[in-house]
Amino acid sequence: MTLMNQQVRLISRPDGIPQRENFAIETAPVAAPGPGEFLVRNVYLGVEPAMRGWVSAVTNYSDPVPLGSVMRAFGAAQVIASRHPDFAVGDRLVGWFGWQSYALSRGDDVVHRIRGREHPLSVYLGVLGVSGMTAYFGLLDVARPKPGETVLVSTAAGGVGSAVGQIARIAGCRTIGIAGGPAKTAICRDAFRFDAAIDYKSPAFEKELAAACASGIDIYYDNTAGRISDAALAHLAVGARIVICGTASVASWDPWPSGPRVERRLLVKRASMHGFLVTDYVARYEEAIRRLSGWVSSGELRYREDILERIESAPDSIAGLYRGENLGRRVIRLCAEDEVRPLSGG
Amino acid sequence: MTLMNQQVRLISRPDGIPQRENFAIETAPVAAPGPGEFLVRNVYLGVEPAMRGWVSAVTNYSDPVPLGSVMRAFGAAQVIASRHPDFAVGDRLVGWFGWQSYALSRGDDVVHRIRGREHPLSVYLGVLGVSGMTAYFGLLDVARPKPGETVLVSTAAGGVGSAVGQIARIAGCRTIGIAGGPAKTAICRDAFRFDAAIDYKSPAFEKELAAACASGIDIYYDNTAGRISDAALAHLAVGARIVICGTASVASWDPWPSGPRVERRLLVKRASMHGFLVTDYVARYEEAIRRLSGWVSSGELRYREDILERIESAPDSIAGLYRGENLGRRVIRLCAEDEVRPLSGG
Repeated sequence: MTLMNQQVRLISRPDGIPQRENFAIETAPVAAPGPGEFLVRNVYLGVEPAMRGWVSAVTNYSDPVPLGSVMRAFGAAQVIASRHPDFAVGDRLVGWFGWQSYALSRGDDVVHRIRGREHPLSVYLGVLGVSGMTAYFGLLDVARPKPGETVLVSTAAGGVGSAVGQIARIAGCRTIGIAGGPAKTAICRDAFRFDAAIDYKSPAFEKELAAACASGIDIYYDNTAGRISDAALAHLAVGARIVICGTASVASWDPWPSGPRVERRLLVKRASMHGFLVTDYVARYEEAIRRLSGWVSSGELRYREDILERIESAPDSIAGLYRGENLGRRVIRLCAEDEVRPLSGG
Repeated sequence: MTLMNQQVRLISRPDGIPQRENFAIETAPVAAPGPGEFLVRNVYLGVEPAMRGWVSAVTNYSDPVPLGSVMRAFGAAQVIASRHPDFAVGDRLVGWFGWQSYALSRGDDVVHRIRGREHPLSVYLGVLGVSGMTAYFGLLDVARPKPGETVLVSTAAGGVGSAVGQIARIAGCRTIGIAGGPAKTAICRDAFRFDAAIDYKSPAFEKELAAACASGIDIYYDNTAGRISDAALAHLAVGARIVICGTASVASWDPWPSGPRVERRLLVKRASMHGFLVTDYVARYEEAIRRLSGWVSSGELRYREDILERIESAPDSIAGLYRGENLGRRVIRLCAEDEVRPLSGG
């Protein structure tokens, strides 16, 4: 029996946010692994705001996904056949396995080997994966919170933002979340235990932000840029640190958008802004996952998932993130974890 | 005989850059020092780009100079009468003595006690004073240069910029200066030994900057903000550090000016921007002056001065800085150093 692989390929470059029509789903037979190769079945696929950058032809922090190729993505997967000495059938992995049902690997695209069985596989794409690690390193290594400080986070109900708020809380900080709409601000307060949550869609947004940040913002973890950040920068405390993790609110950088100049904000408050990419921390992923896993097990670090079903939901899934439709870390489930079987004869 | 004090007072707040008409020169008798006080005669007065901020009523890093009071300024001065146990007649001091010929002090406005006689008093307002220390801490502590890195500086012919370039050179860096006009770029190359100097007034500015920074900017020491910085930010190397020391090119922050958004520049290059004020480093001034003094004596650190004569030149002197008319650290000389005499009967 030949396995058939469903693959989501990039067929055109978006002008800004990737849309459904920039992708096509194709079917191709899966090759059996050759010497030094193994085959994984993807159980969950990641959907990232950063994918906008990955498909852009504009100079960026990674080479653009080539037109016609499988969309670059994290997969949480299980090895179903192996001719590689370090990877055995049944191993659970997170890797750059792409938006497809199966992936052949030589091991160089593996990001992390999953140990233990206490958490479902999906969380290794979320709170114990790129979202949690992005929060962990950006907050703890770049911003370096001190107990008693005020930490403001944008997209606070999302995968990264909710983890930032909770890790800041664990670090002894006062936490303020910004999210869009009453449903998300309620989740921030109730599920993620932010001390305050502010709706950026409210006409009173700037006034409410000013009231919540009356004593100044020590750390602003920025996932949005745009007018949310402009409002935050007016309330920095002396010595504030701003982590630039994402620019979700900016639809396009071509032409390059303008905004209020930041130089004087930073100068007057001796504040700093730091661009940050989690991929610079690969060597410390194990440390982060170990600590994050402990906080998840103890209940100190909660997470929500937004699980789309079937690979057909992939093409529109990035645009959906930018429409703000998810209430948690967005992943795509391709199959149930317990239905993954070794490849017969593999 | 009653000594008469000439004082430059702030009589109105400028809209942006302080102009001649915002100040008035008045004459008042000098009081003799009471118990715990001493009297200094100012030999040199400082003229700072930052004075724009000091006289602004807009929230800032220091309280605004009150209307009607003597303009806040550094003075390099000599004690001419003392009833203070720690300050003796003949002591040479740098302090917040204001734009006036004489100042009464209780010691709390003293910034630095000048040791040794190998340098003229004026340099303690410049390369061995606030300009040199601003360069020293901003470059060495905030940006932390490594040998072989490329350091770009704006206002490179000025007091801070020229010191930044030369300290970066001492640290083993390649140095690129930005200055206005061929006279200043020639000084950058010839006097201050920048590896390259670029004229921001040239129509080819952006092209020349791109060529000089082809391998990327590791450190940008920003004294200007505005379009010079916008051009620099397009050429950051991965891990670049930007020191925000001044915003000389921005005439007014009311209304707040816009410019190209920086978030994506910082994110893609994992770069950081740091607001910086030298006054946060008071506890380490002695260290800085000691090292700067050694570099001046060895010839590794050169400086130029732009010396205005008489207190009457003070009211227009800040505007002149922003007109770019000085070719070096601007100070005002009130008298010759060797004509300062102890107050008879003081």
